[in-house]
Amino acid sequence: MRVLGIDPGLTRCGVGVVDGVAGRPLTMIGVGVVRTPAEAETHDRLVLIERGVEEWLDAHRPEAVAVERVFSQHNVRTVMGTAQASAVAMLCAARRGLPVALHTPSEVKAAVTGTGRAEKAQVGAMVTRLLRLDAPPKPADAADALALAICHIWRAPAQNRLQQAHRAQQARTGRQAPQATAAQRLKGTRR
Amino acid sequence: MRVLGIDPGLTRCGVGVVDGVAGRPLTMIGVGVVRTPAEAETHDRLVLIERGVEEWLDAHRPEAVAVERVFSQHNVRTVMGTAQASAVAMLCAARRGLPVALHTPSEVKAAVTGTGRAEKAQVGAMVTRLLRLDAPPKPADAADALALAICHIWRAPAQNRLQQAHRAQQARTGRQAPQATAAQRLKGTRR
Repeated sequence: MRVLGIDPGLTRCGVGVVDGVAGRPLTMIGVGVVRTPAEAETHDRLVLIERGVEEWLDAHRPEAVAVERVFSQHNVRTVMGTAQASAVAMLCAARRGLPVALHTPSEVKAAVTGTGRAEKAQVGAMVTRLLRLDAPPKPADAADALALAICHIWRAPAQNRLQQAHRAQQARTGRQAPQATAAQRLKGTRR
Repeated sequence: MRVLGIDPGLTRCGVGVVDGVAGRPLTMIGVGVVRTPAEAETHDRLVLIERGVEEWLDAHRPEAVAVERVFSQHNVRTVMGTAQASAVAMLCAARRGLPVALHTPSEVKAAVTGTGRAEKAQVGAMVTRLLRLDAPPKPADAADALALAICHIWRAPAQNRLQQAHRAQQARTGRQAPQATAAQRLKGTRR
């Protein structure tokens, strides 16, 4: 499975592509940052983020995209920009029919380091070790994007089993899965 | 001037198109709502919003797009969805090279009713009168989108004068306008 992880932000979107399956060594395919100038207007910055994410999708053709789930308890001004950047990232993936998964920062930290309260440096160190890199990727947003992709590869089997169980139960009770409804409305063949 | 007003939301995006110039009677060209199913996943809802906004842009070819500025002091959960929907609306307009303007709810209310603290019903009544409609547009999001377009038509002349004065001053002091820098990075010909 090839996964593009995206750590969204208006100023810097970390992007990282990882190949692998749970239980096997992982391979880093690429890592980088999509930047937009702070002095530009928000709508122009969103266009630049769209272009940057599209370039990464075109270049690496991931099978899934994992985006950091934006939380609202932090600085509210920053959160608005992060929510807008993540919307563009999710849009780029979803309109290609790629599965989009959101993982919280603590889910990512727990997956990669074993504790949801790990420091940035710990996450960077574990990403470096897991992907057999020479040094931690910089800036931290780039390392976080790789950690998101790793988290997704490791969590995906469990999530798939949960979804299958959920659908099987809904089939038994005669209720249609909401995902199916949304997919039908999109006239898509995904999922 | 033809303006598309967008009142963003994940469940309902109000959209309204108004033709006119400040100081002359205004004409409503179209009004509606882009809806997405609440049971769909966020990334699929954003794809539906993109399609809906694109359809309105294609059908009415506005010269400018006015979007309600999202504020953070309200319910934080709702604000996240609104920020994401507004990001998609801004993106659709900006990548076509259309000018995008944000107006706050109180700017819109003040422009249309004379007071920034007007009730929803007052806004609906003034929109009905200004556009010579038979009844207030429903739902309220649709009326708000028309109010945004009207606000933009009336505020645009003042905003243009301010921008020109700002650029002239920057030219005198030898500083480059940040808008120019952003535009150059986008390699665009807009503005």
